[in-house]
Amino acid sequence: MSSRRGSCVGVCRSSLAMFRLILLALSILTTAASSHPHPLDPLSPAELTAVRAAVLASPLISDRPLTFHYVGLDEPDKTDVLSYAEARSSSSRAALPRHAFVITRAGGQSHELRVDITNATAPTVLSHAIHHGAGFPTLTLDEQFEAATLPPRHAPFVESVRRRGLDLDDVLCAVFPVGWFGDAANTNSQKKGQQRRVVKVMCFMAGETPNFYARPIEGVTLVVDLDRMAIVDYKDRVVYPVPKAEGTDYRAGKAGASYTRHATVPDVVVQPEGNGFHIDGHFVSWANWEFHVGFDMRAGMVISLASIHDAETGARRRVLYRGFLSEIFVPYMDPTEEWYYRTFVDEGEYGLGLWAFPLQPGVDCPANAAYLDGYYAGQDGKPVQNKNMICVFERYAGDVAWRHTEASFPDKLITEVRPEVSLVARMVVSCGNYDYILDWEFKTSGSIKVTVSLTGLLEMKGTDYTHADQIRQDAHGTLLAENTLGLYHDHYITYHVDLDVDGTNNSFVKNVITTRRNTNTPGSGGADTPRRSYWTVSREVAETEADARVDVNAVPADLLIVNPNKKTRMGNEVGYRVVPGALTAASVLDDDDYPQIVASYSKKQVWVTPYMRDEKWAPGLYADQGTGNDGLAAWSGRNRGIRNEDIVLWYTVGLHHIPCQEDFPVMPTVSGGFELRPANFFERNSLLKTRPPRFGQPPFLNCSCGSHSG
Amino acid sequence: MSSRRGSCVGVCRSSLAMFRLILLALSILTTAASSHPHPLDPLSPAELTAVRAAVLASPLISDRPLTFHYVGLDEPDKTDVLSYAEARSSSSRAALPRHAFVITRAGGQSHELRVDITNATAPTVLSHAIHHGAGFPTLTLDEQFEAATLPPRHAPFVESVRRRGLDLDDVLCAVFPVGWFGDAANTNSQKKGQQRRVVKVMCFMAGETPNFYARPIEGVTLVVDLDRMAIVDYKDRVVYPVPKAEGTDYRAGKAGASYTRHATVPDVVVQPEGNGFHIDGHFVSWANWEFHVGFDMRAGMVISLASIHDAETGARRRVLYRGFLSEIFVPYMDPTEEWYYRTFVDEGEYGLGLWAFPLQPGVDCPANAAYLDGYYAGQDGKPVQNKNMICVFERYAGDVAWRHTEASFPDKLITEVRPEVSLVARMVVSCGNYDYILDWEFKTSGSIKVTVSLTGLLEMKGTDYTHADQIRQDAHGTLLAENTLGLYHDHYITYHVDLDVDGTNNSFVKNVITTRRNTNTPGSGGADTPRRSYWTVSREVAETEADARVDVNAVPADLLIVNPNKKTRMGNEVGYRVVPGALTAASVLDDDDYPQIVASYSKKQVWVTPYMRDEKWAPGLYADQGTGNDGLAAWSGRNRGIRNEDIVLWYTVGLHHIPCQEDFPVMPTVSGGFELRPANFFERNSLLKTRPPRFGQPPFLNCSCGSHSG
Repeated sequence: MSSRRGSCVGVCRSSLAMFRLILLALSILTTAASSHPHPLDPLSPAELTAVRAAVLASPLISDRPLTFHYVGLDEPDKTDVLSYAEARSSSSRAALPRHAFVITRAGGQSHELRVDITNATAPTVLSHAIHHGAGFPTLTLDEQFEAATLPPRHAPFVESVRRRGLDLDDVLCAVFPVGWFGDAANTNSQKKGQQRRVVKVMCFMAGETPNFYARPIEGVTLVVDLDRMAIVDYKDRVVYPVPKAEGTDYRAGKAGASYTRHATVPDVVVQPEGNGFHIDGHFVSWANWEFHVGFDMRAGMVISLASIHDAETGARRRVLYRGFLSEIFVPYMDPTEEWYYRTFVDEGEYGLGLWAFPLQPGVDCPANAAYLDGYYAGQDGKPVQNKNMICVFERYAGDVAWRHTEASFPDKLITEVRPEVSLVARMVVSCGNYDYILDWEFKTSGSIKVTVSLTGLLEMKGTDYTHADQIRQDAHGTLLAENTLGLYHDHYITYHVDLDVDGTNNSFVKNVITTRRNTNTPGSGGADTPRRSYWTVSREVAETEADARVDVNAVPADLLIVNPNKKTRMGNEVGYRVVPGALTAASVLDDDDYPQIVASYSKKQVWVTPYMRDEKWAPGLYADQGTGNDGLAAWSGRNRGIRNEDIVLWYTVGLHHIPCQEDFPVMPTVSGGFELRPANFFERNSLLKTRPPRFGQPPFLNCSCGSHSG
Repeated sequence: MSSRRGSCVGVCRSSLAMFRLILLALSILTTAASSHPHPLDPLSPAELTAVRAAVLASPLISDRPLTFHYVGLDEPDKTDVLSYAEARSSSSRAALPRHAFVITRAGGQSHELRVDITNATAPTVLSHAIHHGAGFPTLTLDEQFEAATLPPRHAPFVESVRRRGLDLDDVLCAVFPVGWFGDAANTNSQKKGQQRRVVKVMCFMAGETPNFYARPIEGVTLVVDLDRMAIVDYKDRVVYPVPKAEGTDYRAGKAGASYTRHATVPDVVVQPEGNGFHIDGHFVSWANWEFHVGFDMRAGMVISLASIHDAETGARRRVLYRGFLSEIFVPYMDPTEEWYYRTFVDEGEYGLGLWAFPLQPGVDCPANAAYLDGYYAGQDGKPVQNKNMICVFERYAGDVAWRHTEASFPDKLITEVRPEVSLVARMVVSCGNYDYILDWEFKTSGSIKVTVSLTGLLEMKGTDYTHADQIRQDAHGTLLAENTLGLYHDHYITYHVDLDVDGTNNSFVKNVITTRRNTNTPGSGGADTPRRSYWTVSREVAETEADARVDVNAVPADLLIVNPNKKTRMGNEVGYRVVPGALTAASVLDDDDYPQIVASYSKKQVWVTPYMRDEKWAPGLYADQGTGNDGLAAWSGRNRGIRNEDIVLWYTVGLHHIPCQEDFPVMPTVSGGFELRPANFFERNSLLKTRPPRFGQPPFLNCSCGSHSG
């Protein structure tokens, strides 16, 4: 394990405050520690420590070693949380019990525990169960780092390295989940019917470059049994040249001179009047929005209880109970031995919170950002601090929220413009080679925009090819550099979005754009005019889950989550529109292919399910070697009623990635996502009440600044 | 005509410099006037004046009055422009001849002229022709304002107003093109076979609100013959209440108090080291980009000769010969008498350049923007200045161009991040009620992102309804307020993108994502592994135009413009990818419906044609009452060869708009567009050479600023 993660205990134990807020120059932040945690606050270091103590002290699990694979908040019932939230202005509201949900491994089994930590000095285990189904919990960082150290001590591997003329000192290995390929492939031959907890380990040449993904020792596969921490299978199937290190380093100063022409000077964003947002504990309030930013070691950032102030009525109205990234499914498209199994479910296998690293102030987030830390349980159960894990900032991109110029009056030109300033909560996950920049953006219009930006490094395959002309059969990718293929792959980033539009019970509506022939008959919608056709809206309210599986590319339709129990003054059902943005690919794998069975939800971008407390993870709770039998498609298969129920929207952002040379050695960002826009939620445009900015004089004209050239 | 537009002559005549650049605080701009115009420079005031003189002096048109409907640059042959551009570093390059293309109306006919203005003191008419086909040129502003003044002097209209109990003093009228609905509908009954140049005039109640679109005098239609400037038809078909003015005013201070909670403070973007871009005449250079920003009274902003510096080779490489917005098609979906004809082709009918108004510094564009003026010919042929018509600014939205955190090394955590700073050229068109914010964004990665953001006011329909429960039949829209319907409609924003990827001759390639069954047979692309399927790329090179009509929602495919004559060192054809962004709707009108015949291109987002100098306008040169017989679909119907030819990409951004109450009284911005991303154009990621920003210390920490609270 890297030193970065190893020694947080001092920091964690010394502080009662759950998060430390970074006070930036010219930023005004409220750094208040709540007297007791909000029911949705993530587990504090003290609470994580209490969980560990209770589990280790429990007689329910006697096997040792015992490793912690998941420790997270076991959320109170939604009704209790909502009651708590509604009483938030009252000083008399009582704290809810604090429970943790825990998955440990011990004695070759996965154990699920619920621990009461309401009194962190006297934690108690409430329940214990052993998971007998398919799949395993998230891999710990420690066991991955340990497994990665095994190959250089494995004689056949040393021989493979020697035979290739490589320097063993420069070898760096990484852990790859094996995926699930049917019971025959995943079952332990000794213990019939029981899956082996194994991973593949692939090795690379680091040495002259930190970009080892560009230098695979292609053809060599090791299999490590994690429970025994031993190599159980070894293949050296084929030898390809290791691509050269030259040109792969992405660090500043290693990539040659910058532009000789006018260099780009990044803007500096400053706010002379201070940040417009306030953070109180985990609650962020800004403009007309208020929401809770939490953290989970699997999901990463979690947005909860987002509500908006309605300027018309003065009321605070609920929009989102909880939103988080549920899974990132990344299948590669090369069926060969070293690649066929690379069908990652990153979040379930690796844990987004575990792979979220400190954001770099001023570059990962602009200078006006505030930062939040996160805490998770290490393999030993001890709290680990994840510093600067989330940033919150006001975003101004030079865009316009609304405008109009009216030129029809003969004596005056009216121009009204409101710049678009929004609030962003951001986390970045570096899940091995790929980096995902994950934004939740709140707009004063009432819109919530969810954006995922993909960057980082490609996973690259070694090859004999040094020129595209040599390629005679399907190479499953693009030749990026000598001996280097960037393989075809997909990304399916699935969000769990529990909208509660102005209340808990909602319906899912498809307003299908439908062409009509002009009948020339008034009364039927037609008219006696030369127009021959028009479109109208066919409203379909989803009764059950089957009605709510939508391919957004197939039929033009407006998709809405509405509250059928609330109407505007005009009589329209209050609602939010689900607006697909860029990246709407759906999986094209065969339905009977194993990774497609695991992530069968990836064939539709939109699903709607009734809210169930434990239906969180799209491929199921146990995603490593999971079979999908406990996932989104399986739940939806029950075809439950979803009309006027507490419902959850699942939205998948999808990308077919055909690599190109520009993706080498590091990928320019590609962004996509979706937007949740109010649609008849307000009586009128809520931005109307936004004040125009005060640009009476050029800003900073009278500045005398000493550090400009810094 | 409004005073705003009437008296520019003094300004225009007094200056030889074609554009004045606004020097902002802390911005460093090069304001250089070229010694002679670039061949793609728009016509200067002096040139416009010369055109007018030549046309009025010409014996070829004797009829008077003579009105100018289009005056624009008659571009030199592309080969000449390219030769000129390539010689640009040489001081000896000779100026190309300067020609103007002109459309006038005189004697009830449309006249086309070409005028030589190389010597602006002695302009000569080179050619003259009379247009005998269908359709009319762009409406002038003067004739629209004049036509709009006719109704209050028309006795039947005055009676209609009186009968509704309205105040004639508050009536404001606007001009609506009649569209084309077959020869029977559009032909003058007196002159067989000849179209009448007519418009419809619809009237509204302004008075208490500038948002007159929200207060239609529904049911009353006037038809004005523009050549006679007389009302030739009048209908008062049905009476609905005029919606009330209350709640429709969007001006600051008219919409009630702002948020009582934390007010949003817009960021201030400043650049202590000055702008990173330089403007020389119409040429913008920034980072690795260089391009020409022109202007046309029909197209608005025109981007030409965009080329990028290749840091690897030191060469400047061509990307885009010319890009501009070709048409905005906006059909409404109500077949009734007052609405069926509202099937706007905004650009051809109204002219985007004519309806581009001064950008508001600091709100339409951020504080670090520079501004360019535009000049067009008024109806009388005299030059009119369009001040602050285009802005250019560096954009920093807090986003990341690329990043990676590498956590696999046991002793160090590597994090490299480059913020995304791009350059935006922006124009805003307020085409009647709608506002279009039109951005061309250049990124250091080599990407060009084209974004259109829609805002402004809805066109609203009067109705009896005051509550949705009263609606019993298809209302063709949403009830937004009492007596106010927001009607269903579409927007199809079509761009002409003449990419010249690393040279003039290019091909269009569809890399279709194709599912393959794993044959378990190495050699066929399969492998002996449990994986059952994967996808690969089926490469289809378009031979003719028919191969290049693409519905981007139908089949997953990477679309590329490649140069088959240039390959990377790795052997990949150099190319640019066409990446659809948000808003990919296609028209669903019946093929035989008249507006669909005019804009039949709106059923596919992507078309590719061979470059032809005069194939610019998607619905044809004469769009007002045009029949589409001279438009994109007609040209493409010739099915010409496009492989390894000089080709043009046409991309349509599409939106089905179902209005909601939030669109009232002013619409929050909705954005969509597409991106042109280099794909094997460079040998590697060109952003690698971007320097990381210098954030050694918080910016402005030592500032002593006097105007912060201003």
